[in-house]
Amino acid sequence: MDSFAPRLTRAAVWRGDRVDLVDMVMPRPVRDEVVVRIRLATVCGSDLHTVTGRRQSPCPSILGHESVGDVVATGPEASVAVGERVIWSVTVVCGQCARCRQGFTAKCERVRKVGHEPFDGDWPLSGGYAEHILLPSGTTIVTVPDRMPDAVAAPAACSTATVMAALEQAGELRDRRVLVVGAGMLGVTAVAAATERGAHVLIAERDSERRSSAESFGASADDGEPVDAAIDFTGSAQAVRAGYHRLDVGGVLVLAGSVAPGPTLAIDPEQVVRRWLTIRGIHNYEPRHLQQAVDFLDATRHRYPWADLVTEPVALADIATALRPPPVGRLRVAVAGQTADQLGG
Amino acid sequence: MDSFAPRLTRAAVWRGDRVDLVDMVMPRPVRDEVVVRIRLATVCGSDLHTVTGRRQSPCPSILGHESVGDVVATGPEASVAVGERVIWSVTVVCGQCARCRQGFTAKCERVRKVGHEPFDGDWPLSGGYAEHILLPSGTTIVTVPDRMPDAVAAPAACSTATVMAALEQAGELRDRRVLVVGAGMLGVTAVAAATERGAHVLIAERDSERRSSAESFGASADDGEPVDAAIDFTGSAQAVRAGYHRLDVGGVLVLAGSVAPGPTLAIDPEQVVRRWLTIRGIHNYEPRHLQQAVDFLDATRHRYPWADLVTEPVALADIATALRPPPVGRLRVAVAGQTADQLGG
Repeated sequence: MDSFAPRLTRAAVWRGDRVDLVDMVMPRPVRDEVVVRIRLATVCGSDLHTVTGRRQSPCPSILGHESVGDVVATGPEASVAVGERVIWSVTVVCGQCARCRQGFTAKCERVRKVGHEPFDGDWPLSGGYAEHILLPSGTTIVTVPDRMPDAVAAPAACSTATVMAALEQAGELRDRRVLVVGAGMLGVTAVAAATERGAHVLIAERDSERRSSAESFGASADDGEPVDAAIDFTGSAQAVRAGYHRLDVGGVLVLAGSVAPGPTLAIDPEQVVRRWLTIRGIHNYEPRHLQQAVDFLDATRHRYPWADLVTEPVALADIATALRPPPVGRLRVAVAGQTADQLGG
Repeated sequence: MDSFAPRLTRAAVWRGDRVDLVDMVMPRPVRDEVVVRIRLATVCGSDLHTVTGRRQSPCPSILGHESVGDVVATGPEASVAVGERVIWSVTVVCGQCARCRQGFTAKCERVRKVGHEPFDGDWPLSGGYAEHILLPSGTTIVTVPDRMPDAVAAPAACSTATVMAALEQAGELRDRRVLVVGAGMLGVTAVAAATERGAHVLIAERDSERRSSAESFGASADDGEPVDAAIDFTGSAQAVRAGYHRLDVGGVLVLAGSVAPGPTLAIDPEQVVRRWLTIRGIHNYEPRHLQQAVDFLDATRHRYPWADLVTEPVALADIATALRPPPVGRLRVAVAGQTADQLGG
């Protein structure tokens, strides 16, 4: 790299009503910072919520927080080396505050989030819909096995890791009846993960295509009987209520989808006590769940058609066509990172 | 014992409007059954709920489920020996059903409960307000250290063990802020137990006598700030709601007091998710908690005035005078078990 001729990179900047491709100077990593060339990013449902206005998010910004890429530059204290293929956490945390010290780094008092930061702030190159991303200090970075396709690795950084966190909250699942509510990317992943843990998994999903997709990942049709755990990824008030009322004695309701304002859930304290019920929420995940996600996807690579859930990649220049719900039969749209070569950098 | 002259024992039978002392034939333990001569029983708040009609319970029955006594006869397979001083679980469980196998023995499908069974059923001598009790197969029995006073040991079988279960549900407490709601026997015990685990404990209690009692067990006055855990022993809808709204990020609300019908609690799924909140109920406890209760009371015998919480014992013949709220400054009324000698058995 010639220090007198700064290389350029390019990113897709969300403007609130459109996406602009913007040329930018390539950042230089210091300390343990890392620059990654994006290979592939997948479009999470929450990005679609931002684009459709259902979610408040900084704007302008570079969206995208499910990505995989190659390390191309590192600061002197980085934990990964140039050339490694990696994924990284959504949350970038301080590690010092009370919440970090209590093990709730996802709720770090100074948290920043990949794909959620203002483009005009001190971390412009912060999203996955770009040729490159800068990973600041406090990002968890995990190396991906060579045999794992990009389309499998990218969703690990949000979907799969969040499912690992959700299942941890559900407790021991062997021989338990587990109801997964919603057969989107997280739901289908949870079906497989709970099946692998020895649970009998039921799927609640209205869409018949998605329901049959979940069944190919291990779920049975919902029989309407009581369950030991219900895990909601939809955020639908009706689904949350139904999940709560399905709990057997000792049952756990894990809420993972309720990320927008909605109606309250009425719970009966006497029933919660007499039936030893638990209701718990999770949002994002902890660093350990990112490695668990990669390990899980790798260990089950022959059992589940992970790559089939993701579309062929759309070119970064065509990002606008990717910010839509996935086509029938797929659960994630993929966006390719263009190479820096194309910019002549 | 002369097998031709059955010895008699005596029990206080709750009739719905009065308590009768009834002479009974002493039971003969078979298999792993155990007969215990009651030394002391304490009056739990739920017995008072039965007497005042707030709780539905079989009637007639022998009440009392917080007791300590000496083993006087055992079946050939019993796990304890004649002469040992013991306490025993509230729940008597099958160990075979799905719930027992899942570790929820408290919710055994065939559960029976000390102090809660019909006097005219197949286990008449089932309560602590008696000279003797028969402990059937499926009772957890724990030996009490010689140095532990009866007045300290008796409440372990319900209050202390339930507190052990509640604290287990609250998770790691070191350096956490814990709000205990209600400074009755369970609340004061929870204050001490959470303090011993390194928590900063706040007490919410309207009664100033009880509040200062809790403070002598380690609590600080409630400062109204957010907490990492709130543990309710009152069952008051208002207290439960207040506890829920006090939770900090990652906080846990443990409900232990809501054992009567009452208003629902409205929870906001988005807040539960974004703030990683947990709400969980517990009712009774598991076998491990009974041993934990004895160990805890023994380990803290020099630090907390456990015996001071219990009144001087009322004679069994005067049980009617004991079935009232404890006097100011005490949290449990004690009832003595008369000796069989007095009956000339």
